[in-house]
Amino acid sequence: MIKPRTPPGVMELLPRDQIAFQRMLDTIRRNFERFGFLPVETPVMELTEVLLTKSGGETERQVYFVESTGARANNAQEGDARGTPELALRFDLTVPLARYVAEHEAELAFPFRRYQMQRVYRGERQQRGRYREFYQCDIDVIGKDSLSVRYDAELPACIYAVFSELDIGAFTIQLNNRKLLRGFFEAQGVADGELQALVLREVDKLDKRGADYVRETLTGEGFGLSAQAVATILGFVETRSTSHADALAKLAALGEGNDSLRQGLAELREVLELIRALGVPEANYALNFSIARGLDYYTGTVYETTLNDYPQLGSICSGGRYEDLASHYTKSKLPGVGISIGLTRLFWQLQEAKLVSTADSSVQVLITQMDDAQLPQCLALASELRAGGLNTEVVMEPSKLGKQFKYADRAGIRFVVVLGENEIAKGTATVKDLRREDQFEVARGELARTLRVELEQSRVMK
Amino acid sequence: MIKPRTPPGVMELLPRDQIAFQRMLDTIRRNFERFGFLPVETPVMELTEVLLTKSGGETERQVYFVESTGARANNAQEGDARGTPELALRFDLTVPLARYVAEHEAELAFPFRRYQMQRVYRGERQQRGRYREFYQCDIDVIGKDSLSVRYDAELPACIYAVFSELDIGAFTIQLNNRKLLRGFFEAQGVADGELQALVLREVDKLDKRGADYVRETLTGEGFGLSAQAVATILGFVETRSTSHADALAKLAALGEGNDSLRQGLAELREVLELIRALGVPEANYALNFSIARGLDYYTGTVYETTLNDYPQLGSICSGGRYEDLASHYTKSKLPGVGISIGLTRLFWQLQEAKLVSTADSSVQVLITQMDDAQLPQCLALASELRAGGLNTEVVMEPSKLGKQFKYADRAGIRFVVVLGENEIAKGTATVKDLRREDQFEVARGELARTLRVELEQSRVMK
Repeated sequence: MIKPRTPPGVMELLPRDQIAFQRMLDTIRRNFERFGFLPVETPVMELTEVLLTKSGGETERQVYFVESTGARANNAQEGDARGTPELALRFDLTVPLARYVAEHEAELAFPFRRYQMQRVYRGERQQRGRYREFYQCDIDVIGKDSLSVRYDAELPACIYAVFSELDIGAFTIQLNNRKLLRGFFEAQGVADGELQALVLREVDKLDKRGADYVRETLTGEGFGLSAQAVATILGFVETRSTSHADALAKLAALGEGNDSLRQGLAELREVLELIRALGVPEANYALNFSIARGLDYYTGTVYETTLNDYPQLGSICSGGRYEDLASHYTKSKLPGVGISIGLTRLFWQLQEAKLVSTADSSVQVLITQMDDAQLPQCLALASELRAGGLNTEVVMEPSKLGKQFKYADRAGIRFVVVLGENEIAKGTATVKDLRREDQFEVARGELARTLRVELEQSRVMK
Repeated sequence: MIKPRTPPGVMELLPRDQIAFQRMLDTIRRNFERFGFLPVETPVMELTEVLLTKSGGETERQVYFVESTGARANNAQEGDARGTPELALRFDLTVPLARYVAEHEAELAFPFRRYQMQRVYRGERQQRGRYREFYQCDIDVIGKDSLSVRYDAELPACIYAVFSELDIGAFTIQLNNRKLLRGFFEAQGVADGELQALVLREVDKLDKRGADYVRETLTGEGFGLSAQAVATILGFVETRSTSHADALAKLAALGEGNDSLRQGLAELREVLELIRALGVPEANYALNFSIARGLDYYTGTVYETTLNDYPQLGSICSGGRYEDLASHYTKSKLPGVGISIGLTRLFWQLQEAKLVSTADSSVQVLITQMDDAQLPQCLALASELRAGGLNTEVVMEPSKLGKQFKYADRAGIRFVVVLGENEIAKGTATVKDLRREDQFEVARGELARTLRVELEQSRVMK
């Protein structure tokens, strides 16, 4: 006998949690499609040489390699038992997107708007809330040669729609711009690109380590900035806007500055205006000059999203603008902008914070059975309800009615239908609504419609 | 520069094909849920010792092993470079189901009805239409200690609902029963279990190799059956029913026979009656005594599903009843019945047979743009349409209108909306319906409703 268990670091859910998770996936997908993003799925395995274009680094240390039994045997014969396997599991959805767009470039229309919701794999150190297999839900817009900054406004609008419908409390999409950041630092005498990156990395620690730590580091030996410059920098990165007008005022207060600052300002202004035109409420977006993100990668707009009442969860949805998606695979210049929800971790966080409740069952109706003689009628009724759009389960073997009700209650099934001799004779069915603790009898021909109306009313009233 | 390409043996789709594929997945899932099956997802990786409970055999030769960089380094240090890795990719959804049910036994309600739609991995020899990564869409009902044969009728009813809605032409769900098969063979003097299995395996080749081949083999040295017995066997396995009444008559014609035959007959009769009670049309199910399937595994009802006009595709959906799901993981007896659609292969077959057409885009509306000045209005309109349930894309940079129409046409977007100066002044929008080649102007407040009605009408009329 072998102990049945999953590998460490994966999330596996019982059915009712899986239903809640699936509803989140559905909501995300529906909103991604509302905004005109097209679905893409890629294989979980990529060729190693395609996946790991840059060797070394954090990424490669976390990658999972894949070998078929045949490949293992071949390598062993050739004495190459430790050679790098040909296949590896994707560790994000961005590298597969780059490969996909480069591979299918001639067949795609640009700007290419795609969404992708699949699992990715990272050999993370074991830790609570860190997963080795987790869902990412990504949207990206990829341009050919160029891509208007206007698209940078669409992503937050889509993310606003997603999180509003997910109904997980107040949230703020925070915006910054790397060009503005760079221009500002240049003005503070941090002109060297590499040094800027290092200062930005320290600035990125502001929320986690506090202002004192960052101040000491930046005036210390390694950086040697003046106390004045550091004070200006820290004053700057603490900037948050409280409204749309305030955001524009805070941008104006920065002055014209140098080219990079000027460009960043213009981009942020346009993005803010279009986010407003898209109808995103002012309470749901804000400037935050402390956001730097992926230092090598992002070049313009950057995003983070936080739950107002749970700042300790950190960013639940992040992304930004990049210069060139697929330079490893194609000579075409493919600038883009993207944003990503790490749903597995978010689901875990929401569960921990008790922000997701146990879902009702996906089964809406249970048809009970008291007597073998009624089974054919019960099955026929089930078919009527299913044809009427209701998810219906039939008890296939007679048992005590109390036991059947108890099962429905525990399983989260809302409607229990009794079709006894009396009901069959009268052409009716008796329904117990376990949510409203209500019981009623209805003509059989009206049953499906009646239950659909009840479900629809609860949905609307929620 | 690295050539962007996928590993061999995987299916990767362009967006419009992905949309068609996704619609099939949605249809299958919707019908699985209609029949009261609950969602389960399991990790793609399982512990090798859990996954490969039986060592050797076809399965292990096809399995993909997984190793993190860290695990590879550790193994190499310990000189165990060729030891079996701890993790492997699932090769079907049945072993993960067994592990899941055994692991969560105390938390599940039995009979446990689950569906699972995920990708599985097999290191298949490279061959057209054979995939190394493919979707399986499974439903199973698992009992504790026992499970009524009545459930064996629900699966074909669900599969009928799935394939009817997938709209891929006439199909027949073919039924047999392994007990009946065994009883019949015993009566023909093939009493030994192992010999039965071998005869059944030969009989299984009937469709592929023809009657002559099977006859020669069975009267030949290895089997040594009498010509009489072989004639009876071949007569038997060629039995197909043409209607419900015919199926019952063919069962009756077999006589009472021995215990095993009698039990198989009773089970098949009950299953047939309940399939009818569930409203499955007679044309969609039939007896087929030549179906044997997974010789070690299935013990009662067995299913195959064929497209009437494309018998050469073989079975597109198969399964059956098994005695004990998880004997490797638990002492509990868990009998079950299940059926599986291999969707990746089916999708490929349907494309080859030209039975799936290119899907419309998931984007339903394109809002054109002729002038920067109108962009905020276009974005506001997009938000109105999205709130009204329409998947909407906005052209973000002005270009020639003809180019924008051409894009919509190629992308399969049905409605193109023009919101020019005139329309804005009048509070209207001009719509071109590319499917109906029709153009109309409508008050802006009515636009979402009007387009929804058009889409709904096309859906109903289809």
